[in-house]
Amino acid sequence: MASDVEVAAMRRALDAAAATRRTLPNPRVGCVLLAPDGSEIAVGAHHGAGTAHAEVDALTQAGEAARGATAVVTLEPCNHTGRTGPCAQALIEAGVARVVFAQIDPDRTASGGASTLRAAGVDVEAGVMAEEATDLNVEWTFAVTAGRPFVTWKYAATLDGLSAAPDGTSKWITSEEARRDVQRFRAEADAIVAGTGAVLADDPRLTVRDERDMPLPFDRQPLRVVVGETTIPNYFRVFDRVAPTLLIQSRDPATVLAKLVDNGVRHIWLEGGPRLAGAFWNAGVIDRIIGYMAPAMLGSGRAALEGEATTLADLRPIQIEDLTMIGPDIRIIGTPGRMQREDFD
Amino acid sequence: MASDVEVAAMRRALDAAAATRRTLPNPRVGCVLLAPDGSEIAVGAHHGAGTAHAEVDALTQAGEAARGATAVVTLEPCNHTGRTGPCAQALIEAGVARVVFAQIDPDRTASGGASTLRAAGVDVEAGVMAEEATDLNVEWTFAVTAGRPFVTWKYAATLDGLSAAPDGTSKWITSEEARRDVQRFRAEADAIVAGTGAVLADDPRLTVRDERDMPLPFDRQPLRVVVGETTIPNYFRVFDRVAPTLLIQSRDPATVLAKLVDNGVRHIWLEGGPRLAGAFWNAGVIDRIIGYMAPAMLGSGRAALEGEATTLADLRPIQIEDLTMIGPDIRIIGTPGRMQREDFD
Repeated sequence: MASDVEVAAMRRALDAAAATRRTLPNPRVGCVLLAPDGSEIAVGAHHGAGTAHAEVDALTQAGEAARGATAVVTLEPCNHTGRTGPCAQALIEAGVARVVFAQIDPDRTASGGASTLRAAGVDVEAGVMAEEATDLNVEWTFAVTAGRPFVTWKYAATLDGLSAAPDGTSKWITSEEARRDVQRFRAEADAIVAGTGAVLADDPRLTVRDERDMPLPFDRQPLRVVVGETTIPNYFRVFDRVAPTLLIQSRDPATVLAKLVDNGVRHIWLEGGPRLAGAFWNAGVIDRIIGYMAPAMLGSGRAALEGEATTLADLRPIQIEDLTMIGPDIRIIGTPGRMQREDFD
Repeated sequence: MASDVEVAAMRRALDAAAATRRTLPNPRVGCVLLAPDGSEIAVGAHHGAGTAHAEVDALTQAGEAARGATAVVTLEPCNHTGRTGPCAQALIEAGVARVVFAQIDPDRTASGGASTLRAAGVDVEAGVMAEEATDLNVEWTFAVTAGRPFVTWKYAATLDGLSAAPDGTSKWITSEEARRDVQRFRAEADAIVAGTGAVLADDPRLTVRDERDMPLPFDRQPLRVVVGETTIPNYFRVFDRVAPTLLIQSRDPATVLAKLVDNGVRHIWLEGGPRLAGAFWNAGVIDRIIGYMAPAMLGSGRAALEGEATTLADLRPIQIEDLTMIGPDIRIIGTPGRMQREDFD
């Protein structure tokens, strides 16, 4: 049993993980080192690919004080050698006496950390506040478990479900507040995906920008992904040097997702193109929907989603998780019910 | 200036008016009679066409005690002889010394009550809590002022704005809770309007029913109105004996509204038929929207509204007045922004 002191430390480790910026394709992880008397020696966190894992971050701060300490970590310490060495080994070498962790690592290539620690004589306790820890890394956990990126589909529409007028005009249906809100979500994904049609129509930047509309640094931008077979002229903004861009010459969701897996993408932000959204919808590979509805109606135009329903039995339920006003717009966050047939495999 | 006692009495008169059931085509009105010492003699209310007006209701209860009293009324006492005699005259004959009223009667055929009272030597004060009183009779006030019924459009759709699947199936997109909520609103209108297409497709009852799905008595049912030029066979439920039914062989909103004015209709509940809704939408004669959105998407099907937008400048803003969950569904109540061109005259 984890002691009260350890549970309190896990809460602080979770907070440290939550305070990090986007760490994808890696998970958010926090680590607190406790001295034998329960006092805190160090708090570490992982700050993204290529930087130290949370355990190593804490151990580095602690130095010799780590000997005999208890490490409280939000995720099972990794066992593999990636860009950084395995954390299980680092904990053993630092002389840590006990490890309490929350989420069991769902990644088969990384797991086994607990066994390695136990084999080295370290006292190990797993699953403390595991649910809270998993909530921190919903998309990462999904991606690692399902073998494909988590897909968040964003749309903006009128109350009558339209994203563009019959003549194709669509700028801007929703408010500036909604567009700013989108930036915040985009920053949490590691790829922003749009179809060639939407790119040709709107010349979007597909970047993450701050409150002053200034783009974040290149290394903090999600990968821009343009899918479809139409050629985009090189003067389009999606090819500027603000962020990396990947072209995928297919609209088949399984192909697109497989390509993104190859590129280490865990969470895609799908926007732009009712046809592209429809393809993902039909394939049953939309995992979250974030919809912005403008307080307006058009009466005719292009639907936000161009899917393939035939009869009312094709109605797909959506579990509403959040309903709120963003400026004048209504924002809905929901999870589509699983389809009977799952086209992606 | 109205005294504190009179203002308090007006609050009670408003409550008495609010407690009445649907009184359309007449307004909701309450009346409190105060003795010279400020004590309450009687509380009256109007309970619908053919029954006593609120003032007469109170005067009847008060009898001789009305002499020298103050009448506190939510609406300017009427001056015309309708199915009941003019209230101004009744107040004078009963010997009422002072009349405090809230809303000035917007109906030219009924107004002038204040002048008649003053001419007879009655002390008159107008406009006390006028806003609250007008709020009680929004649709009636609109109809009397604009010369056409107030139009509430109800729709039910998926989150992607669809009311039926491509094969026409549409029962039921929204929940039982939403359908029960609709009954409550229907009861507040004095006509329920649907197009022949919707009637042929769904064979709706278009009646007001209680929690057990039992229809209210015939004389409390709104008028059922079927508009369009297609013939409906007489075995359709809209022709049953549960409620009166009117056929209007035109889909032109101006013609439909004029016919309803002739039938004394003040507030119509428009439902059934994206094309009919589109015609009213295009004409700019939808005054309130009540939309139920099911937590589901279809991907393709029939839009809830079939209007005539061409470009994004045709986007019509909607002032959201209420956003709430009704069971699993999202209910939006809003007011469309006025159009530049107003087709109805």
